[in-house]
Amino acid sequence: MVVSDAMLRLIDAAGVLAFAISGIRMAGKKDYDIFGAFVIGFVTAIGGGTLRDLLLGKTPVWMQDSIYILLTFVAVLFVMIFRKNLIKLEVPFFIFDTLGLALFNVVGIEKTLVCGFPWWVAITMGMITGAAGGIIRDVLLSQEPLIFKKEIYATACIFGGLVFFVSDFLFNDVLVSSLLCASSVVVLRVLALKYGLSIPKLWNNK
Amino acid sequence: MVVSDAMLRLIDAAGVLAFAISGIRMAGKKDYDIFGAFVIGFVTAIGGGTLRDLLLGKTPVWMQDSIYILLTFVAVLFVMIFRKNLIKLEVPFFIFDTLGLALFNVVGIEKTLVCGFPWWVAITMGMITGAAGGIIRDVLLSQEPLIFKKEIYATACIFGGLVFFVSDFLFNDVLVSSLLCASSVVVLRVLALKYGLSIPKLWNNK
Amino acid sequence: MVVSDAMLRLIDAAGVLAFAISGIRMAGKKDYDIFGAFVIGFVTAIGGGTLRDLLLGKTPVWMQDSIYILLTFVAVLFVMIFRKNLIKLEVPFFIFDTLGLALFNVVGIEKTLVCGFPWWVAITMGMITGAAGGIIRDVLLSQEPLIFKKEIYATACIFGGLVFFVSDFLFNDVLVSSLLCASSVVVLRVLALKYGLSIPKLWNNK
Repeated sequence: MVVSDAMLRLIDAAGVLAFAISGIRMAGKKDYDIFGAFVIGFVTAIGGGTLRDLLLGKTPVWMQDSIYILLTFVAVLFVMIFRKNLIKLEVPFFIFDTLGLALFNVVGIEKTLVCGFPWWVAITMGMITGAAGGIIRDVLLSQEPLIFKKEIYATACIFGGLVFFVSDFLFNDVLVSSLLCASSVVVLRVLALKYGLSIPKLWNNK
Repeated sequence: MVVSDAMLRLIDAAGVLAFAISGIRMAGKKDYDIFGAFVIGFVTAIGGGTLRDLLLGKTPVWMQDSIYILLTFVAVLFVMIFRKNLIKLEVPFFIFDTLGLALFNVVGIEKTLVCGFPWWVAITMGMITGAAGGIIRDVLLSQEPLIFKKEIYATACIFGGLVFFVSDFLFNDVLVSSLLCASSVVVLRVLALKYGLSIPKLWNNK
Repeated sequence: MVVSDAMLRLIDAAGVLAFAISGIRMAGKKDYDIFGAFVIGFVTAIGGGTLRDLLLGKTPVWMQDSIYILLTFVAVLFVMIFRKNLIKLEVPFFIFDTLGLALFNVVGIEKTLVCGFPWWVAITMGMITGAAGGIIRDVLLSQEPLIFKKEIYATACIFGGLVFFVSDFLFNDVLVSSLLCASSVVVLRVLALKYGLSIPKLWNNK
């Protein structure tokens, strides 16, 4: 099965919307104004890719394509209009968020390899692309980053990254490795949700 | 009327001082030591321009001109010496802060255009130049960024940015567009203060 | 006495371990999971150098040498295994942390000079290399940065930087200046600890 460019663009847009909406909802709960909610939604969606691009010495993607700002506008309007109904949409949000995470991870890995960095930088950058936006969001909301305390999230990116390079070693085919990487992120997140898996605490403070 | 280089330098210095003093006063209220107050003042003044320059792939301006560190020293001394009298200086602080915001916005827009980016990146960078320093200040003070909850501030930059490009379309004259952009930032902030305008909350949480 | 490359590598590794362990312990106290503790340890160790490299327009050092990620793994394991005994190790931690701070300061100064920047940028970058990791750590822990409120820490870097350039003016020998700079950071920190020195508050809020 060949994943077409149009489909990748669609997953990217769905992921950006899901990330932005997650940030905008949190900003709304904290009494932020519409401008603040927009900024929080925007950095949630593009913060990870921007940090990756700064570290790689590249121009951030959102400065080359206005779709990211436009999608954030759509996300703000969506949250304002459908506020009462958002709670019913948890399942599609989770699906889009997970697909976005998987895609952002693969994009981060591939872009880093194209820049000539080794596998362990690529895995780190895949994780940063997927997870750093949420960390920046929480910093701007003045709260402890959620992903440091619960949920399999960034760890799913790292697992997917390892799958990518094992597959790359076995099959030497970027498309196969990308699909296996993305699939493993999705499967791990779904299993983690279903069985309530989480990363153990460093210490038991009780 | 031609705005001379010397006048621009003067407005820049007044803006840097006003931004730094705002950060230093907040650091003082939070019991920070003199070093901490200096750092907070410095990032408030140069944080926006630094983030802009990193995103544009340029060397930050403060690394090329020692005036920004020197002005922060002046600001720290000023706050220490005139602590009791600062409350009487709210009006000049507001004027300098607003002139600085207007100038930083124009500088951010023009520098981004020189780098070859389109108008919507330029408006975003103008806003980042003016407002991101205050966001970094609040993050380092471990408090929710003020501009996400009250006041017309970053929004005045965006409005000014739109005025810049409408003017650019109409008159095709950078100087005219810059002056109209800066004026509209100043006018909008003054009107917002006078009439208590603010951006609506995303949600009514009551 | 010639400080060999192997010795510098050893001090660097000891400093990275001490910085990472300080971050990991704080993350443990805040109930972060193992992944969160790893990230906090990593940014504490490499955050300062990374910010310096972004400002200088260079590729961050940790992207070119996997030792920094490996040392953070070691630090996480160390904290998990020796949790009960860490309190007895305060003295070696302080020694490693101080040696690391002194070395990071010198490395930051020299790298900045090689990039062609003037002395006051070099001193700032030395301080950022030594102290910014701890600031980023505290931001990600959602607490006020410790170094803004107590201890001679970043200020020791600035003092060491001034010693570097006074020595450079007097002796014009990079090795001598580096050793004097590093020694002065160590001496100042030890004296500050012994005599309870700290930077005065900006204001007396009592």
